[in-house]
Amino acid sequence: MFKIFPIKNGLENVLGFYCDAVNVGMRTNSANENETSPIDGDVAFIRTQEPCDIEALFTSNTFQAAPIKHFQRYPNGFQTNFVLMNAKNANAMTGDQGIKDIDALFEKLGEKISLHNPVMSSTGVIGYRLNQEKIATAFDTFDYNGKNSDKTARAIMTTDSFKKELCFKVELENGESFHIGAICKGAGMINPAMATMLCFVTTDASIPKDDMQEVLLEATEQSFNRISVDGDTSTNDTVMLLANKKSRAYHKEAFQEALNKILFELAMMILKDGEGANKLVAFEVKGAKSIEEAQKASRALSNSLLVKTALFGEDPNWGRIASTIGASGVACDDTTLTIHYDNLLIYSNEFRELDAQREEQAYKIMKQESFKVICDLGLGEASYISYGCDLSYEYVKINAEYRT
Amino acid sequence: MFKIFPIKNGLENVLGFYCDAVNVGMRTNSANENETSPIDGDVAFIRTQEPCDIEALFTSNTFQAAPIKHFQRYPNGFQTNFVLMNAKNANAMTGDQGIKDIDALFEKLGEKISLHNPVMSSTGVIGYRLNQEKIATAFDTFDYNGKNSDKTARAIMTTDSFKKELCFKVELENGESFHIGAICKGAGMINPAMATMLCFVTTDASIPKDDMQEVLLEATEQSFNRISVDGDTSTNDTVMLLANKKSRAYHKEAFQEALNKILFELAMMILKDGEGANKLVAFEVKGAKSIEEAQKASRALSNSLLVKTALFGEDPNWGRIASTIGASGVACDDTTLTIHYDNLLIYSNEFRELDAQREEQAYKIMKQESFKVICDLGLGEASYISYGCDLSYEYVKINAEYRT
Repeated sequence: MFKIFPIKNGLENVLGFYCDAVNVGMRTNSANENETSPIDGDVAFIRTQEPCDIEALFTSNTFQAAPIKHFQRYPNGFQTNFVLMNAKNANAMTGDQGIKDIDALFEKLGEKISLHNPVMSSTGVIGYRLNQEKIATAFDTFDYNGKNSDKTARAIMTTDSFKKELCFKVELENGESFHIGAICKGAGMINPAMATMLCFVTTDASIPKDDMQEVLLEATEQSFNRISVDGDTSTNDTVMLLANKKSRAYHKEAFQEALNKILFELAMMILKDGEGANKLVAFEVKGAKSIEEAQKASRALSNSLLVKTALFGEDPNWGRIASTIGASGVACDDTTLTIHYDNLLIYSNEFRELDAQREEQAYKIMKQESFKVICDLGLGEASYISYGCDLSYEYVKINAEYRT
Repeated sequence: MFKIFPIKNGLENVLGFYCDAVNVGMRTNSANENETSPIDGDVAFIRTQEPCDIEALFTSNTFQAAPIKHFQRYPNGFQTNFVLMNAKNANAMTGDQGIKDIDALFEKLGEKISLHNPVMSSTGVIGYRLNQEKIATAFDTFDYNGKNSDKTARAIMTTDSFKKELCFKVELENGESFHIGAICKGAGMINPAMATMLCFVTTDASIPKDDMQEVLLEATEQSFNRISVDGDTSTNDTVMLLANKKSRAYHKEAFQEALNKILFELAMMILKDGEGANKLVAFEVKGAKSIEEAQKASRALSNSLLVKTALFGEDPNWGRIASTIGASGVACDDTTLTIHYDNLLIYSNEFRELDAQREEQAYKIMKQESFKVICDLGLGEASYISYGCDLSYEYVKINAEYRT
């Protein structure tokens, strides 16, 4: 057996990884006036002394940003010792020039520190070249042996109102242990406007290269892929796993479980930090004819403007839920459908009209910071859960005013 | 040849159609505090003395409301002499009871006036039975020989801030003429929250029954189907064409052109009246490999929260447009793509970064009440245009507070 427990802070606990961030003046003011944690930097890095294994998942957007194209030039299974990150500029839609700019930056950085297949990750506005000179000033001031996870996590924030970092320690039965640390920013999937979620995971576990893609796919499918809100997938979305094997320990099941926990918690942090969002709602669709149909209906609910504004308005009427399922294109039948808010039945064939008492109960459930909407289609055995948030005035404000 | 020209007001110009509306107390206050035209009624009708031809298009939502199911019980090609309408209650998700309630209403109405295959159309909240007693009080007070198009158009409003009625007269070369009148409400497709758009078209043209579906499909595809915003298709959406042949005149091409004009103008009225919307934007995608791809990309733009909030913020950055196209799943290439706002080139492979001068010009275009976003994918010959509006604070307010 094994034990998984959270430990304080983030990346600094993971053996052999160094990180730091500085402010080179790309971020002239804090990105979000509501932020609770001030932002120190705008350029950051994560590095290892020796090259380590790397695995990454990228956005499905056809217009992948330059850092992603740059990454993909390396041969499969490559190792790296440096990840450079920046905020305020996505380096997206910048053409070949965007890739050349990354090469030029790494040429300069190579004068300061030994590089092996360095990679970059960016977030910010689309359509502008990186400011080479400004970013390069960071190379003189980085603390290359820093363990400054807090600063690094803050440096990649955009409209985030709090930094997102986590670390889990996994202890195996034989007494060995390993760490998984992660930082994350988003925005992105719940709040398409900022266009990007980035997540960097480091581990000292001796995970074989062959396991990395599998565990990363699985953990991402259970987390970030379930908070995707709409078609506005970013040009820059990235989830990256770096493994340096500094600990001898590894146990696949334990690693998967810990990684699942980390990415799921980070995904929920993104939702809670959703621009202007106040509520976190789980949309469970069950009784569907297939997983695909359950997923389609569940995602239709978490993406629906109609449902999101009703959540914000704390309107217990189930009509918008039912209408969204009916419009989602999945097989459904109003005589087999049931809808619950948490444990409260609010719709069934026998019980269509919401009486005052149940409306009051439903209203109480909706007042909570998080709750569950459960739609049983009553047609099969398949189920799927996705997560969404409400849509508030604040969302519109943030996204109308974003850019400068 | 023929002439098509608008004439004042709406349905009252069309020979042989009668309409009226009364308030039976379902609408206790005006539905929209911003409304410029006060609402008089909540129950209304359109009728003819003799049964007339009817053709209708309904929502693709699986959970079609009771009035739609009631309509569909009649055999193909049936004639009617009465359309009953109500606001404030959609009679949706009400099961068999919802259909029985309509039958019961028509039984009572039949005591007042001779009915032939009467049909009903409803808009409002989902999940409550119609109040039989309240609605039936209208049957005593209706002016059955009224020509009260204005009142009728107002009675079907929900969050609409102005009534929508139009009439065109068509004069043929032989001196004969016919009318097409229409009233409309919506809400629905641009503003999924209200869940419904209804449109009732009357004509005295001698249109053969066989032409009716064809012309209605064509005109709807060019209008209401192009302002559909997302998957939140209503349970009640209805476009209905009633033809009583009171005029001997008919000319298919002229009829189609006039009907296209009417439905397009009404669709634009819906967009302009979009809950909280300030701007009407046409999204033209051309140079696509197929019509389907052009349509997919165009609709992705008009549906995107990311794009809609940028429009509200009058942010000239084209990044969100490009990102949305890249995420839409159509074939695209950032080296062949160009983006224009009206006639201003704002993105091409050679011209990626927005300089201050062009940004200023773009900003001026975006300040207008309506403008065009033209994306040329540069990959083929197909094009498609759809229409959208911005997303403002007001939208969230209206949809969070709607119901009581």
